[in-house]
Amino acid sequence: MSGPLLHGGQLGDAMRHYPDAPRPFIDLSTGINPHAYPMPPLDAADCTRLPEAAALADLEAAAARAYGIADPACVVAAAGTQPLIALLPRLRARASVAVVGPTYAEHEAAWRLGGHAVREVEAPTDEAEVLVVCSPNNPDGRVAAVATLADIATRVTVRGGWLVIDEAFIDLSGRESAARLISLRGVVVLRSFGKTYGLAGLRLGFALAHPDLARRLRASLGPWPVSGPAIVAGRAALRDDAWRAAARARLEVEAAGLRAVLTEAGLDIRGGALLFHLVEVADAASLHHHLCTHGILTRRFPAQPRWLRLGLPPDPPALARLRHALAVRPRNTWRAD
Amino acid sequence: MSGPLLHGGQLGDAMRHYPDAPRPFIDLSTGINPHAYPMPPLDAADCTRLPEAAALADLEAAAARAYGIADPACVVAAAGTQPLIALLPRLRARASVAVVGPTYAEHEAAWRLGGHAVREVEAPTDEAEVLVVCSPNNPDGRVAAVATLADIATRVTVRGGWLVIDEAFIDLSGRESAARLISLRGVVVLRSFGKTYGLAGLRLGFALAHPDLARRLRASLGPWPVSGPAIVAGRAALRDDAWRAAARARLEVEAAGLRAVLTEAGLDIRGGALLFHLVEVADAASLHHHLCTHGILTRRFPAQPRWLRLGLPPDPPALARLRHALAVRPRNTWRAD
Repeated sequence: MSGPLLHGGQLGDAMRHYPDAPRPFIDLSTGINPHAYPMPPLDAADCTRLPEAAALADLEAAAARAYGIADPACVVAAAGTQPLIALLPRLRARASVAVVGPTYAEHEAAWRLGGHAVREVEAPTDEAEVLVVCSPNNPDGRVAAVATLADIATRVTVRGGWLVIDEAFIDLSGRESAARLISLRGVVVLRSFGKTYGLAGLRLGFALAHPDLARRLRASLGPWPVSGPAIVAGRAALRDDAWRAAARARLEVEAAGLRAVLTEAGLDIRGGALLFHLVEVADAASLHHHLCTHGILTRRFPAQPRWLRLGLPPDPPALARLRHALAVRPRNTWRAD
Repeated sequence: MSGPLLHGGQLGDAMRHYPDAPRPFIDLSTGINPHAYPMPPLDAADCTRLPEAAALADLEAAAARAYGIADPACVVAAAGTQPLIALLPRLRARASVAVVGPTYAEHEAAWRLGGHAVREVEAPTDEAEVLVVCSPNNPDGRVAAVATLADIATRVTVRGGWLVIDEAFIDLSGRESAARLISLRGVVVLRSFGKTYGLAGLRLGFALAHPDLARRLRASLGPWPVSGPAIVAGRAALRDDAWRAAARARLEVEAAGLRAVLTEAGLDIRGGALLFHLVEVADAASLHHHLCTHGILTRRFPAQPRWLRLGLPPDPPALARLRHALAVRPRNTWRAD
């Protein structure tokens, strides 16, 4: 990796680059729930004291319940999924790694940084010692069937290989999780807290894994993997089934609203998930720029010059601004075909 | 490492084990400033949005200034020093590692977990590929002279080795930091934010290193190594020179007060730093138990059955309770000699 990868959420940079764009700037560059779980009030001790082992264990128990895992020992909390993505390649000797892509770029970067031989593949395969698959995939929303993953998991793990399934965008999707596959030693499922609950700044995520691998992850992360504020929010939110049900219903309506605006604008929707949609246009950089001049930040992908990802607008006025900006866009940002 | 190491701060466990002890339970089991930096108010966005690269860079600039480092590229923020302690052994091939001990146990555990050949040494040495030294040392407060470390650093790094200097307890001590040694490629200095500013729950710490190694650490930690609340607190606190000066003056008085109480009680003070003192007694487990029955949690060390570490009591009533509890302690918790 020659430099840091491009990520969404750099709203400050966008505002500096487009000082004349209308305000407020709307951030559609991430796939984060725009309607955050209400942050519980923090006690002073949540910030001042080291998080206690019992509080961390309770957080992991709440996560186990939310993710349908019987044994909380299989659930490992971390400061987002990123530290887990970075750690996994450090836990095994040089291996052949296949990443189903194009996808979230940190996976490939982390395995390369760990000295492994990485290649991108188009679909899940067992022709590697380690297979990494994001499902639903970011940014195109592709879903790998759990039956397919189960089949591959059996073949990969029997040889001592790993199957890493990044389910950062599966919460609230109604889709079947591959979490049950962690009964196989060598299967790891990653789950994001920040995206689902709209609390990405707290840094919280989980690995679900066979107890043996969970133990190695836990030992490597050390005694205080998660901050006090993240533990407070996680313990409350992961137990709030009613909030999740309401969030899902609301987001489904809003995702349909976004799809309608994109379709009305004549854009090709290449795919998506509940929290984002991917469109394909002749020149994504131009459309990205055009939307920035209208105070709307989206996510482009340097390696995919025709792709633009749009997160969910936070409210109807934001959706209306997107609709207007798309209606007045220049010709070279039209359909890809 | 066969299991998780024993750490301080498990106040909930202590309260459950000693239900009849007087309340409030006083936690002297950690070396954290009991007078926390006032937590700045959080905006919703600090929790909901991914921390932006510019905010992280500004945090590192504030840290560079506070630690006297000219180039912020040499400063790497992490969620406490623990992720850095865990990461360093993953960044090099199997090496001979010397850890000056007894000391904070996570260092040795992390290097062992990374597959290295680790031995404990009594004093800094260049007879290893990697030397780890905590200065001031936890728990006995020993200080390694910077001139000695400079000499060893030159000899170790010229062979491609590393010198890791954990300065978690140097802030506010008035002692000279070894930070200037990071001009040598292979020297890493670790600094703790949570202990100095009494905000350990936020998880924030820094590595100071030569730009080459800093770049490797940064790449391995990934794009969001620190939470939004930690960035908010760090940017404010690290720039607050007046608060630091006042904190140092106050803690020096309180440390003298703790020393006086320990001396009056006839205890052998084996060493200490501003935020803790270490006493040596015939049976530290008994003294630990006795103090717990009086609602005071201290820190013992299973491998050092005569050692007990006491953090700073948070206020005069807490110091008075400690004084009373020590006055009525059983005979087997007296002097070690």
